[in-house]
Amino acid sequence: MIILKIGGGKDINITGVAEDLAALSEPLLIVHGANAWRDELAGRMGWEINRVTSVSGFSSTLSDTGLIDLQMMAYAGLRNKRIVETLRQHGVNAIGLSGLDGALIRGKRNAGIRVRQKGKLKLLKDFSGKPRSINSALLDMLLEAGYVPVITVPIIDENNRAINSENDDIVTLLNSHYKARRVIQLIEEKGLLSDPADRDSLVEKVTHADLETWINKEQGRIKRKLYAIGKLLAGGAHKVVITDGRVVHPVNAALRDKGTVFE
Amino acid sequence: MIILKIGGGKDINITGVAEDLAALSEPLLIVHGANAWRDELAGRMGWEINRVTSVSGFSSTLSDTGLIDLQMMAYAGLRNKRIVETLRQHGVNAIGLSGLDGALIRGKRNAGIRVRQKGKLKLLKDFSGKPRSINSALLDMLLEAGYVPVITVPIIDENNRAINSENDDIVTLLNSHYKARRVIQLIEEKGLLSDPADRDSLVEKVTHADLETWINKEQGRIKRKLYAIGKLLAGGAHKVVITDGRVVHPVNAALRDKGTVFE
Repeated sequence: MIILKIGGGKDINITGVAEDLAALSEPLLIVHGANAWRDELAGRMGWEINRVTSVSGFSSTLSDTGLIDLQMMAYAGLRNKRIVETLRQHGVNAIGLSGLDGALIRGKRNAGIRVRQKGKLKLLKDFSGKPRSINSALLDMLLEAGYVPVITVPIIDENNRAINSENDDIVTLLNSHYKARRVIQLIEEKGLLSDPADRDSLVEKVTHADLETWINKEQGRIKRKLYAIGKLLAGGAHKVVITDGRVVHPVNAALRDKGTVFE
Repeated sequence: MIILKIGGGKDINITGVAEDLAALSEPLLIVHGANAWRDELAGRMGWEINRVTSVSGFSSTLSDTGLIDLQMMAYAGLRNKRIVETLRQHGVNAIGLSGLDGALIRGKRNAGIRVRQKGKLKLLKDFSGKPRSINSALLDMLLEAGYVPVITVPIIDENNRAINSENDDIVTLLNSHYKARRVIQLIEEKGLLSDPADRDSLVEKVTHADLETWINKEQGRIKRKLYAIGKLLAGGAHKVVITDGRVVHPVNAALRDKGTVFE
């Protein structure tokens, strides 16, 4: 089993990904983002994404009904179906699914974001949460029949509402069940950079022991990503590779350990 | 087997549909439109839908790349996932799929639209076509596992490109395989009207023999719809009911033969 996470940027080479995947003969799960498409769609619609700052100082996107609508359009709609189309053009038997479909990814809705509004403390409840379980019977049935599930948000909460969730958490959950021999993450960088300002400062290898040092050193998104990789390794992933998705053959590169290898 | 076609208008009562379907215990296929959402999204994006008039005088939508993008967002994304969400909230084990997913609905791309541009005849090739075959192995597998497939456009052509297609043709194709005991079509009218200007002029029953008279009498969309119903009956549908989707319990009404019954 290989689990492939495709980042949400526009420069990921999906045709190259499709060519590479067509040559593989093992079970495969794909999870993808679509941030760039969501933001472009929001821009074209003149739709302002609501960002809030919690009392503890964290800034986050408020996943209100409009944001979930956007996510359905950009992630589960446009990006998911265009990826499926490209994969099928190269002979990959892709089937696109959101976490809602067949309750594929079930989550627990977050309690809310604590904010201060007009001097008063308030709990802003939005449609976001953490994935908790997968419908493995559905995934197994599709995998055994030779399909390649192409999975994206939204997922479904305990009350069957569509909620937003982190792709990293979805990948961790899938891996905790399937124990992939390799988790590949395609991003728009060469991999983990030792100096974010120097795009060539690739870190080629991070051992489980090094990881904590890195997590302490990094900030923000990278810190979260490294933390998620730690959970992946702890959850039974044999190897995690972060590779540049912009190259001619991104998956082949990842299979040859190009990028940053975590093990 | 019941095949349920849900029209693309905003006033169809999906909650009522979900309540009704939750009480059914037979296999079910759903095909839905999303015209109103597509047009609203196009409007909000300031996106002009390209309409062309062929040399034979027919006006049609040009399914260019942008229109297929819109369709993925509005049909396969927003509307499909919100329908799945509502169905699941009422205990219906829904799984949303476009015709691309698992190559569920395979079609043949149209040759093109003959138009006259600057005095010259030209063949405008777009991404539209006719559905020709279904992946019944995938549908059977899902149906046997207790899922309710919720199907929408785009479909996939002979070269694995996403193409637009008529929902009526998809329903006809599904029925030619599954021979539904009843095909239900939910629309935003009481049914077939004998006088389009009088919304209460419901025609309660149309026999196969009457149908040709009606087809000759009607024009445009209604004529096409009646023609499609003729094909449904010829293809083995035992009964086709067109019912008002705006009522409290639309599917129950259709099961009680409210609306226009064709048999």
